[in-house]
Parts: sequence; C-alpha cells; structure tokens
Amino acid sequence: MTALFPGTRWALGLEYDGNGFCGWQRQPGRDSVQEVLETALGRVAQHPVTVVVAGRTDTGVHALCQVVHFDSPAQRSPEAWVRGGNTYLPPGVAIRWARIVPGDFHARFSATARRYRYVILNRRVRPALWRNHTAWICRPLDVLAMQAAARSLRGTHDFSAFRASACQAKSPVRDLCQLRVTRRGDLIAVDAEANGFLHHMVRNLAGVLIAIGRGERPVGWAAEVLASRDRCQAGITAPPGGLYFVAPRYPAHFGLPVDAMDAGFLMGD
Amino acid sequence: MTALFPGTRWALGLEYDGNGFCGWQRQPGRDSVQEVLETALGRVAQHPVTVVVAGRTDTGVHALCQVVHFDSPAQRSPEAWVRGGNTYLPPGVAIRWARIVPGDFHARFSATARRYRYVILNRRVRPALWRNHTAWICRPLDVLAMQAAARSLRGTHDFSAFRASACQAKSPVRDLCQLRVTRRGDLIAVDAEANGFLHHMVRNLAGVLIAIGRGERPVGWAAEVLASRDRCQAGITAPPGGLYFVAPRYPAHFGLPVDAMDAGFLMGD
Repeated sequence: MTALFPGTRWALGLEYDGNGFCGWQRQPGRDSVQEVLETALGRVAQHPVTVVVAGRTDTGVHALCQVVHFDSPAQRSPEAWVRGGNTYLPPGVAIRWARIVPGDFHARFSATARRYRYVILNRRVRPALWRNHTAWICRPLDVLAMQAAARSLRGTHDFSAFRASACQAKSPVRDLCQLRVTRRGDLIAVDAEANGFLHHMVRNLAGVLIAIGRGERPVGWAAEVLASRDRCQAGITAPPGGLYFVAPRYPAHFGLPVDAMDAGFLMGD
Repeated sequence: MTALFPGTRWALGLEYDGNGFCGWQRQPGRDSVQEVLETALGRVAQHPVTVVVAGRTDTGVHALCQVVHFDSPAQRSPEAWVRGGNTYLPPGVAIRWARIVPGDFHARFSATARRYRYVILNRRVRPALWRNHTAWICRPLDVLAMQAAARSLRGTHDFSAFRASACQAKSPVRDLCQLRVTRRGDLIAVDAEANGFLHHMVRNLAGVLIAIGRGERPVGWAAEVLASRDRCQAGITAPPGGLYFVAPRYPAHFGLPVDAMDAGFLMGD
C-alpha cells in the first residue's frame, strides 16, 4: 500500500428514503444523505470519512441500492460497518452490506451501468399510503403508446433534449440500453438502464412518456424531441417522489451484490 | 324515507396511512382517522356527519380500502364527496370512491368478511424506505413452518387465545376462512380473511406465526395455543406498522368495489 491508499477500500450498499433529504450531495445547512452517511461512518471509523457515490440523486429521490466507496485505515469487520453505521444513521438511511474491494475499485467510475425505476400511481384519486413513494397521475395513461415511445428512445443517442440546464456532463451521449414501461393495476413503472444518466434525464424521459401516455402528444414526438437535442422541446420534468435509484452494475470480478436488488418491490415483477 | 333515515345513505371507500393517527376511533386530544374524515365530510355536506366503519383499526395500522357509511340530506354527487372530501382531508387519508347504498346497508353489520394483510420485511438490516410500512424481522423466518402452522389455525374456532384483554366482542368464535403465508424475496405476507376479527387478532396470529418461523416454537404450538383459549399462551402481539386492513366483503347486490382492491400492492401477487 502507498500513501495514496490509506488502509482498506470498502464498498457499501445503501438504501434510503429521499423524503427528508436535500438529495445525495452535501449542501450547507441542509440534510443530505452524504452528510449523514459520512458522519455515521466517521463514528465507526473514529476518523473523518469521505465517500464517493455511484450515482448522485436529487431531492426526494429514493435508493434501493446506492453504492459508495471509501478508504479507511481502521480495522473493522463488514458487520461493524453495517451494524455500527446503521446505529448512527437516521431511520431513513440504512447500510445493506459492506465489502472489501480492490484499490482500483471506484463506485462511480467502475460502474458499467445504472438502473432507475420511476413509479407512477395512475388513478383518479390522490394517494394516501404511497404519497411519498409514487408520482400520482390522475388521467388514465395509454401504456401501449408509452411503450412504443420508449422503444424509440432506446440505444446510443445524444440525449441533450433530456438533460437539465445545470448538467455538467462533458458529453450528452449515453447508451440507454433499457427503457421499459409496465403496468400492474394502478401502478406503472418506467425502468431505465444506461451506462450513465445526465442530470434529470430519467425524470425528463418519464415526463415525455407521461405526456404521450396522456395523449397530449403522439408516439412519434419522443423521437422528435430526441432528434432536436433541444431541452426546451421535452417539456416538464416529472416529479422526484416516484424515482428510485435501483442499483449500479459493476464488472463481475468485484463480486458486489448489486444485480439481485429488489427493483420489483413495489410491483412484484 | 322516514325520520329515522334522513336523506341518502352513502358508502365510501377509504385509503389511509396509519402513521400519524391514533387509529380509527375518535380519542380526545389525538388525531384519529374518524375525526378527520367526519370533519372533511361535514364541510362537504355543510352539516355534522357521523360515520360507521367496517373495521376499526389500531394506531399505526393502514387501510387500502376501509369502508364507511353515513346518512346525509345534502344533495351531492359521488364526485363531490370524493373530490370535496379529499380537498379537506390531510395527505395521509384519501376517499377512493363514493356510492349511494340502500338504507339497509350497514358498513359494519352488512360485511360478510374482512381481509387483512400483515407485511414482514425479513432481512438482516433494518429498513429505510419501508420502515413505516412493514414489520422488520431480522432473523430468517422458516416460511414452510409458518405455512404449516397457518393451516392448523384456519376454520371456525374459539380464538380466545388470540384476542386482546380489552376485546369487547361477545363471542370469541370466528370463521378464519383464509390464513396464508407467502414469501417474495425479503418480503413475507400473512393474509387473513374471516367473518370478523377479535381485537388484536391478526397481530396475535402474526406473532405466533413469527415465533414458529423463527424456530422458537414448533409448528404444532399454533394448534396448542388455539386449543388453550388462553391469551397468555400466544406471546407477543406483532407490531402494527406492517398491518393493512385490505377491504371488507359485502353481498354482491350492494355493488361495492371492494373485491378488486390491491392487496398485492407491496408484493405483486
């Protein structure tokens, strides 16, 4: 080990409820998931801990299996990070697992893909039970139209039309290898997987699919928006409460338990 | 219509999140679902409204489709009760539908059965996302043992061993026509249907099944507890956060939309 790699590199899997947090990233005077996690891990490690995250999430966005890595010279068992960390974390955040990883593992740069699920409750009356965990759309959505539109967005494209103006990514090109719409009763899930996502990309994709599902726009509009590369075309960003960061994917040799995550929790698929 | 039946009799379907309420029934100085509902309906009706409920629920217990009835001389459309009521209700309660019912309909006494679901999150680490909507059991549960025990409790029995000491029911005999245990990933559902339930009966049944699932007791213990008719035998009452009142059942001629309720919301079955 060199001075650049102080101690052991750890990867953690993390579940959190986006309600009550300003999002992943530290912001002065606000509660971020990053801050509560670094504080909890620092108490377990007994030294300050800085984590690197697989995919930053916005205010109100949930995570089923977010992944972070950090380095620590402290001798701790995986169990100590999980149990100790969970003792110090607030109720809305839980560490699911901890694994020692090679020094070349990087939560963000080693990830080959990220998976998101956007959950819509599509019924006439507002939700009570799942009001903070689904996006409510009152008007009936045409899922067949949404599915056809989703197919036209899959693949490697310049997704400039679906990025937030504040997006700092160097390239707007992403490989959207999966974009799938499924309905089960009142619930509609939009599942997206890409090598990476631009800022607000999932919620902007969901926003376009919802407009098409409502019949406000024809199916072909999705491809038109994509081709325009113009953010002003895509319309509204869907609200954050229905969005779940499901998990990143990593090369198999890292052996991280990220593929079996329960994306189907809300819908049983 | 007689003076005993002032106006029209309405039935409402109601979803609520048990968190933040002291339970169904009015209690001085505490927030009950009954109180917020009667207040909201009174504002729509512009006269005081008293509701009768299908199945009272305890603190922290949720409902997917609770049913109430009430009488009102006010001329209102079903839409007016739903939309108006939902405007005045707090976010944790929503009216799903409203129907005119015959004067002999009674939310409690017309119900032929009631369905409950108890949802257990069975994994090593505590929940973050579903912490208020599942009961967390850390130790692995043996679902086969729980299923065998559940079978031995089904049928018409004296359920004295599963009633709370405060229970006011005249008879402890109930027909438990369904008691089923299913697992999907980390989630275990205990589904119960009976012509009626004694106070705490579902949570006490869940408590016995959990003790058997943990291996603390053999499968045959369930039948022993039942036969004892002694509440002291059944051990702990399972916590309320995992319990959902799914829906009551009514004779088909009332035409109420209670059978299609989404009991499978959390698990997709």
